[in-house]
Amino acid sequence: MQQLFVKQSLADQQQLTLQDETYQHLIKVLHMRVNDHFQIVDANQMTFIAQIMQINSTSFTAQLTEQVSLSTELPVKVSIACALSKKDKIEMIAQKATELGVSELIFFESRYSIMKWKKEQQVKKVARLQQIVTAAAQQSKRLYVPKVKYYNNFADLLNYEADYRLVAYEESAKNGESAQLKQVFRKIQHQQSILCLFGPEGGFHVEEIAQLVQNSYIKCALGPRILRAETAPLYFLSALSYQIELN
Amino acid sequence: MQQLFVKQSLADQQQLTLQDETYQHLIKVLHMRVNDHFQIVDANQMTFIAQIMQINSTSFTAQLTEQVSLSTELPVKVSIACALSKKDKIEMIAQKATELGVSELIFFESRYSIMKWKKEQQVKKVARLQQIVTAAAQQSKRLYVPKVKYYNNFADLLNYEADYRLVAYEESAKNGESAQLKQVFRKIQHQQSILCLFGPEGGFHVEEIAQLVQNSYIKCALGPRILRAETAPLYFLSALSYQIELN
Repeated sequence: MQQLFVKQSLADQQQLTLQDETYQHLIKVLHMRVNDHFQIVDANQMTFIAQIMQINSTSFTAQLTEQVSLSTELPVKVSIACALSKKDKIEMIAQKATELGVSELIFFESRYSIMKWKKEQQVKKVARLQQIVTAAAQQSKRLYVPKVKYYNNFADLLNYEADYRLVAYEESAKNGESAQLKQVFRKIQHQQSILCLFGPEGGFHVEEIAQLVQNSYIKCALGPRILRAETAPLYFLSALSYQIELN
Repeated sequence: MQQLFVKQSLADQQQLTLQDETYQHLIKVLHMRVNDHFQIVDANQMTFIAQIMQINSTSFTAQLTEQVSLSTELPVKVSIACALSKKDKIEMIAQKATELGVSELIFFESRYSIMKWKKEQQVKKVARLQQIVTAAAQQSKRLYVPKVKYYNNFADLLNYEADYRLVAYEESAKNGESAQLKQVFRKIQHQQSILCLFGPEGGFHVEEIAQLVQNSYIKCALGPRILRAETAPLYFLSALSYQIELN
């Protein structure tokens, strides 16, 4: 069912008139008709089912018929940290990781990163990614908007606190490693936290991997195929949801 | 290491001459030189290490130096069928699904598809997607190049033969359905086939869902969050790999 956010507070059984973007999207793009239902989230994160009562030339009226309670958040706190890459790839990761339930997204510069962020660009770039994440959170009916951060120091990753800390490592995949990810996903308990690091296109430098392992990061493979830098985090988050959200 | 596909059968220690696209890609674009190595997969999905022996103006010769045994293919045949969407989304699906192990990609027009392909465009569009898939198969070291198909008739999907046939259904997610996907993934045996259908942005029409269910398609949810049309197939393929390729 379609979901919209409105900035006002709503009450069950209320009738309201919607226009502009909402009208355009539901009536013009999705061809919704009288008696069709959609979902609406108000300023207090209350969710209602709404029914279309009447459609006019530039607006429509809807009646709230039911208040619903939904849980769309993962029961664990999951953070991903991705090496800098091209703008479109990073934006794709931000959007898709949000849909897939991430709590925190960190971008960082690593030895083989093909992109660098100049100091004066960092705040602006993080703000742009935060916008993408916020829009994706709305679209995917999240109740929580993930946070975007930038680490310009690799050591910050070594100090990041989480119950489980993993690094996706291509060489592990090549050596046929296939047990670590599932072992961790089976152990993690509700309310615990997990972080996974993803390297740039050229992979991590061996010294970076050595530093991570010395700091008790677990190296894991994400299946036997070589995944692109922007695909690996999506595999990780999908697999985590599959393991802990599907019965 | 770079990987290429050739249509002939090869044998270890064989010498072969390569030209055209392969010459262009390895010599002109990647600037490979005499003594450089690459990987080559033949018509029988046998993989060899090849060494460049001599470079001429429009071709080069290579010697196969070693046969390698790699298994980068999923042990099941997995097909996805996605409703038409915007070009960049479809191309993203084609590339990422290939990395994630898909065997066959079908694109189809459904009631709420926001895009239509005119009859005269279909062959060209499929060819373009096939190119993307072939490049992605090389990049991710697949042994098999997935096939791209276009179905302009919804009934073709009803007749598609597979051991398991699923449809990702947003309303199932809303209703808290969370068991079907895992049940199927646990049952599927090596060499069996599975197909999953993914609707357009506006979702499937209720009549389409009814038709699919009448034809014994299983409705499944991909977790509690609403995934975009292009994210859902990636969740599905990642979860399948996680279930059957990781121990």
